[in-house]
Amino acid sequence: MEERSRVAPWAPPRAQPRLAELEAEVDGLGLDAVTRLVAAVLAEHRGRLDEDGVVLYAGTNTMSERARAAHEISLGCRPSMGWPGDKNQTGLEELDVLEVLAPLQVAALMGGEFAEVRLQSATLANLACYSAFTSPGDTIAVLPEAAGGHAGHHAQGVAGIRGLRVADLPYDAGRLDVDHEALPAFLRERRPTLVMVGASLMLFPYDVAALRAACDEVGALLVYDASHVAGLIAGGRFQRPLDEGAHLVTMSTYTSFGGPPGAAVVTRDEDLARQVSSAAYPGLTANYDASRLAPLALAAAEHAAGGSGYADRCLANAGALAAALDREGFTVAAAHRGWTVSHHVAVDAAAFGGGDEAARLLAEGGVYLSGVHLPGQPPDEPARGLRIGTQEVTRRGFGPETMGEVAVLMRRLLIDGQAPRAVHRDAVALRRAIP
Amino acid sequence: MEERSRVAPWAPPRAQPRLAELEAEVDGLGLDAVTRLVAAVLAEHRGRLDEDGVVLYAGTNTMSERARAAHEISLGCRPSMGWPGDKNQTGLEELDVLEVLAPLQVAALMGGEFAEVRLQSATLANLACYSAFTSPGDTIAVLPEAAGGHAGHHAQGVAGIRGLRVADLPYDAGRLDVDHEALPAFLRERRPTLVMVGASLMLFPYDVAALRAACDEVGALLVYDASHVAGLIAGGRFQRPLDEGAHLVTMSTYTSFGGPPGAAVVTRDEDLARQVSSAAYPGLTANYDASRLAPLALAAAEHAAGGSGYADRCLANAGALAAALDREGFTVAAAHRGWTVSHHVAVDAAAFGGGDEAARLLAEGGVYLSGVHLPGQPPDEPARGLRIGTQEVTRRGFGPETMGEVAVLMRRLLIDGQAPRAVHRDAVALRRAIP
Repeated sequence: MEERSRVAPWAPPRAQPRLAELEAEVDGLGLDAVTRLVAAVLAEHRGRLDEDGVVLYAGTNTMSERARAAHEISLGCRPSMGWPGDKNQTGLEELDVLEVLAPLQVAALMGGEFAEVRLQSATLANLACYSAFTSPGDTIAVLPEAAGGHAGHHAQGVAGIRGLRVADLPYDAGRLDVDHEALPAFLRERRPTLVMVGASLMLFPYDVAALRAACDEVGALLVYDASHVAGLIAGGRFQRPLDEGAHLVTMSTYTSFGGPPGAAVVTRDEDLARQVSSAAYPGLTANYDASRLAPLALAAAEHAAGGSGYADRCLANAGALAAALDREGFTVAAAHRGWTVSHHVAVDAAAFGGGDEAARLLAEGGVYLSGVHLPGQPPDEPARGLRIGTQEVTRRGFGPETMGEVAVLMRRLLIDGQAPRAVHRDAVALRRAIP
Repeated sequence: MEERSRVAPWAPPRAQPRLAELEAEVDGLGLDAVTRLVAAVLAEHRGRLDEDGVVLYAGTNTMSERARAAHEISLGCRPSMGWPGDKNQTGLEELDVLEVLAPLQVAALMGGEFAEVRLQSATLANLACYSAFTSPGDTIAVLPEAAGGHAGHHAQGVAGIRGLRVADLPYDAGRLDVDHEALPAFLRERRPTLVMVGASLMLFPYDVAALRAACDEVGALLVYDASHVAGLIAGGRFQRPLDEGAHLVTMSTYTSFGGPPGAAVVTRDEDLARQVSSAAYPGLTANYDASRLAPLALAAAEHAAGGSGYADRCLANAGALAAALDREGFTVAAAHRGWTVSHHVAVDAAAFGGGDEAARLLAEGGVYLSGVHLPGQPPDEPARGLRIGTQEVTRRGFGPETMGEVAVLMRRLLIDGQAPRAVHRDAVALRRAIP
């Protein structure tokens, strides 16, 4: 009989040996040993990714020093329930300032009037929208997994928590957008209460105006999940979903936005905002961890002050990296449309054992990213592609001139089959050469 | 026409002037001004509550220096989806250690076998239980608001998010426990899928064994929300819900437990644990903010190493404070049962304009707590009581010998009617006198 882990005996077989190894490592440690172990793993993590890593993972980022310095975890241990002037708690006058500053800043940046910033993640921001605007048993329509639709939009995620039926929007994998010819009939037949777009891989904008027009015909609300592209939207690049007709924008505040973990829901409509607010509190939060608000306000202020510079640099890096990967012999996805107009790039990794296997090998060589299903790929197949996001390397100071070197690292690992150890040394050197 | 705020024009009238004042304060600030403002409010907050406050608010705490030092917000910007050895992301080998260490430590402390630690709040831990074990339309039974039942247990909170019907458990306000005579017939009639106990005010343990026996008769799961008392349970004081028959314990990790914001769900049953795990991921989380795990592991290790010392000090302080308040002329709730056997104390504030008004006055005098409905008080009345928790002052080093001075501060403000300014000076001096 296989040994099963104590922490999660139900975890997949692949996980069991690693879990058992870790359990043996931490078993029976006293306070001093736990303290040393925690300090060691934090230092090693920092070294591996923050200091030495070429991090191309699309779902991460590094906070600015300004924002990081404003994070005080102790503030997260002070619940704040209700609005400034009408709170359940006393002594929170300073937090009041952040509770007004952060939503005003985020709303303005995203082209909205109102921002709900108390939800701890974009997944929960989406659940707040589902809760505010749908009832259990309703149908919502989301991008299919074959279009990179996020798990949190589907039945295994918060849509299932709310008890919703989830229908896949018709999708045109060639155009990387909703199939707008098929959409009206689909909406008339399925009658979704809410339509959600936005995905884990967003190479090109959606035709939001056409989506909104179709939604209006059946009275559906249109929600745009900008988790991956919020930093581009803040910089006035990519697209402006609220200008183009989305009723609501949900977003993560850490990925391309580059703030702390957390989320926002932004809208121009007071009535929608009020309902989202009520779903956030008292619906989904009591203590919402207010420590996130100070770094969020600063991240937003940095976007406002920096204009479109950061977004432009992310886009320039993505374009340069896609071109360099193409030059080095990779098959970059969406070549017929010029690869990308966002900070994302996707690469076909079928020749390297698929996306997950390729990502594993790249990590051994010091380049960190993840597998992804390529547009149109059936979700029951293993991920065929690699997903890249340039937001973190952009923040770290990598410019388009460095993207060629990044592509070479990837070629040496995946195409040339060089030993990861040798490539790792060069990846670390490349990272450390950036001031 | 009254001016309405821009951030939340729907907020209650009491909030509008404060919101408008804050909006004027932050309007149009550039990056430098925002940076200075944020630094100033963080420093003022720290001064008011952490350095100078006599904080008796029951829903807060301060983290140990050890735990606080292990909090790195950057880790929260690194999503970790799936189990160690089977993750969607690469480069997270160090985080793997924390993902095994933290649940093992928390489970052992709480008397369980399995702990789910990824959920960002106890509210979400309860939603995970609702999602795992109920379907929309099901009935759950919770303590009525007149018993201090938490908003998150009721229809305005996550129970409503899940689409549940919520029935009030029969309650015996005199005994401060479920009415066990009425319980079996109630359960047979209402047939709840899940029964939840635990409240915002927990002066005495519940008869968990009797609850479990009654639940077994109708096949209901018994969940004990230990958010307020987890630190006492960890120290082996108060009660041990899993020993006594609860199927699951949910808890906040910051209040009496004294760790970072966040939550845990603990059980001995592998099948229940597996279902909670799946509700946590991929149900309710994608990025769960892993920065919380290091301080959580350390907070748990401190409880394990410190044995029952912290819990004993919390209880001794609560007993001493209740006695001192009684001596100073306050009406302390539950006198017939000896006031409290937890770290909570409740005071009747009807003579001082009710709980909220009394809390406001106390805050002006440097003593921070909140109003609460007294046991058995109708929820549509204004809160009549004051709620006190001794966990933070205990962590700050206050001992039973200081509780007399705390009671005197409260008497001077509420009974003697002294000017808050004078009392504030003495409250700060008392706080600063503690090393």
